[in-house]
Amino acid sequence: MRQSELFTKTRKEAPAGEVSKNAELLIRGGFIDKLQAGVYSYLPLGFRVLQKIEAIIREEMNKLGGQEILMPALHPKENWLQTGRWNTLDVLYKIKDGEDREMALSPTHEEVVVPLVKQFVSSYKDLPLGVYQFQDKFRMELRPKSGILRGREFRMKDFYSFHRDETDLAAFYNSIKKVYKTIFDRVGIGARTHLTYASGGTFSKYSHEFQTLAKNGEDTIFLCECGVAVNEEIRVENPACPECGGKKFTEERAIEVGNIFELKTKFSEPFKLTYKDEKGELRPVVMGCYGIGLGRVMGTIVETLSDEKGIIWPATVAPFRVHLTALAGDDASVISSADALYRTLQERGIEVLYDDRDISAGVKLADADLLGMPLRVVVSRKTLAENGAELKSRGDEKVRIVKFKDLLDELK
Amino acid sequence: MRQSELFTKTRKEAPAGEVSKNAELLIRGGFIDKLQAGVYSYLPLGFRVLQKIEAIIREEMNKLGGQEILMPALHPKENWLQTGRWNTLDVLYKIKDGEDREMALSPTHEEVVVPLVKQFVSSYKDLPLGVYQFQDKFRMELRPKSGILRGREFRMKDFYSFHRDETDLAAFYNSIKKVYKTIFDRVGIGARTHLTYASGGTFSKYSHEFQTLAKNGEDTIFLCECGVAVNEEIRVENPACPECGGKKFTEERAIEVGNIFELKTKFSEPFKLTYKDEKGELRPVVMGCYGIGLGRVMGTIVETLSDEKGIIWPATVAPFRVHLTALAGDDASVISSADALYRTLQERGIEVLYDDRDISAGVKLADADLLGMPLRVVVSRKTLAENGAELKSRGDEKVRIVKFKDLLDELK
Repeated sequence: MRQSELFTKTRKEAPAGEVSKNAELLIRGGFIDKLQAGVYSYLPLGFRVLQKIEAIIREEMNKLGGQEILMPALHPKENWLQTGRWNTLDVLYKIKDGEDREMALSPTHEEVVVPLVKQFVSSYKDLPLGVYQFQDKFRMELRPKSGILRGREFRMKDFYSFHRDETDLAAFYNSIKKVYKTIFDRVGIGARTHLTYASGGTFSKYSHEFQTLAKNGEDTIFLCECGVAVNEEIRVENPACPECGGKKFTEERAIEVGNIFELKTKFSEPFKLTYKDEKGELRPVVMGCYGIGLGRVMGTIVETLSDEKGIIWPATVAPFRVHLTALAGDDASVISSADALYRTLQERGIEVLYDDRDISAGVKLADADLLGMPLRVVVSRKTLAENGAELKSRGDEKVRIVKFKDLLDELK
Repeated sequence: MRQSELFTKTRKEAPAGEVSKNAELLIRGGFIDKLQAGVYSYLPLGFRVLQKIEAIIREEMNKLGGQEILMPALHPKENWLQTGRWNTLDVLYKIKDGEDREMALSPTHEEVVVPLVKQFVSSYKDLPLGVYQFQDKFRMELRPKSGILRGREFRMKDFYSFHRDETDLAAFYNSIKKVYKTIFDRVGIGARTHLTYASGGTFSKYSHEFQTLAKNGEDTIFLCECGVAVNEEIRVENPACPECGGKKFTEERAIEVGNIFELKTKFSEPFKLTYKDEKGELRPVVMGCYGIGLGRVMGTIVETLSDEKGIIWPATVAPFRVHLTALAGDDASVISSADALYRTLQERGIEVLYDDRDISAGVKLADADLLGMPLRVVVSRKTLAENGAELKSRGDEKVRIVKFKDLLDELK
């Protein structure tokens, strides 16, 4: 895409009142826009990141046999009364329909997915099954100050699994733990992300969070030498690591990027979601649920992969792989070479943002650093003299001239 | 996908209280589920259709230079007061945030997109531009009875264009007219869909709807011999066709599948969205907006492309291209041949739903008709004797045996 056609522009200054690093950088870069507290628009560059994160998660959910669906945001009050959460969930938005009956605006979807699945499950032969969606959640957070890490409205992948018994749930729970690790690896935050033991409430001994180490993280975790962490509550209850028994922990700040729960029969019971086993006996379906907030992943990448100049996108989720810049002044040969290179990259299917704007070199290079595409390619009079372009990785200070004939191989 | 793994099942009976044909067939097939009046879940088969419609529309919007974004559903009340629609739009859902301040739940996005674009537009050089999104809309319809044709919550493509003047808007408006025609052709309803003149309200002489002829359509249109139609209001005002001047009309029932408006300065004025022209003078930005409801397109396809046995999906939006069925009884060679064919089709990238269920031939064939994939392939003892499979198009009664060696070419 030609940057002259991108309708957003970068800003030098952080917006007033925006205290989180992720929102500051993302707004300055034109990735997102703040509509009101905790509510953001995704602009073209930011939407591309969101789509790439979604595609990676979708691929991994499909590998687990997940069936993709889309459930609504407007939920009948009765479903929420059925689980008791109408009166207990403090972040629940309530809204009236045309007949002055109340509805819930979905903060999560157990109250809809369980009655839905109940229509199709009657026998042990119908289990196990897994469904998931990418859908917007609404939560009445009182003082949202963390940019896209904690919004009042956000897109989430929520996966719900249904099993004959706890053994089958446990096996699936283990698979999804591994798949979550794969997802966080693929989006570029795997090395800083730790499986973290958390309280499971009344129904499970533990649930698990995936926590990414980050200076500005909302959470405190205690990281064991074995690489697994526990959250504050678990740490108080249990001085030993639940995984290895070790007792040496370092205290860290972190961002929760995903969580997985063994729901067991917490939601199948109120909705009487049961099945007939091999002997014809009615048994409750055993459930798990597994969430990842897309904006939260995107915000975590920005919090952890950025420097004083801007964002450093991992190649897998960057809006474009290459940021091509022509430093032309008035030199028509520079512009025509850069134009030709732009066309060639597009023809080869290499995603490229082409800074064809007629502005100063300093602004262009500062914007490239702020926007953070993995590879920067500069064409200038100097590089043309060497029959090539200057290549630089965003995460690296090294700059080198690559001949045009070798450039495509380097950018693949 | 193996049908035995699909978590939904077909139903023989239409759900009680569902009067629309689209919802009846889609619920019976397990494409959608009704959560409450006007609010539906999209299940795996239905979600695949929705995704294909979305992909076609996205491709066409990108060809127009549209930049994809994603705006939120929770809108500040002030934005809606600014345009006066807080008090006048009767379908507007109102909701309170945590501090008891009111917000709107988006029925449309002019109130958000205009202040958003205003941040980036100051000069004539910034125009024209077009942004679009696929986003959920919420409208408090009083008695939603038309299935997914008119919901309280539905996903919509909304495109907003911004121009220097009415001439530029008119040129773009003409392009989008053509692109809408292409979209309706591609999703399989082009032949029955007519450009229809409608009232433009205070600001334009006409707006346009795209109306698909359908027995159960909510709207009445008057179709001119030239292929263009007018809606009831225009018909009363003007006895001649605005396109060709003709006066012979046939009265038809139809479904509105898309609409396009010249908004002109209706929304740029309240938000003071202006730009500086070449002479440095401030001028208001001129706008258009262009919507297509995804569920409405899907419902229209079902209303118009179905028979007494079920749906007849166009190949471009069908959940799967091929419905492969093994009529095996106890014949292991039939099952192994069908299994092998299933694997081959998957390897070739041909989308296939494989009915591997151990149930009667009658139920399988009835389900294939109900679900409506474009091509049905049956493997049975009889077809194996001829070293092939039986091939049938859903929209056609002809059945023929095709040798396995020729089958892939036929299914491409």
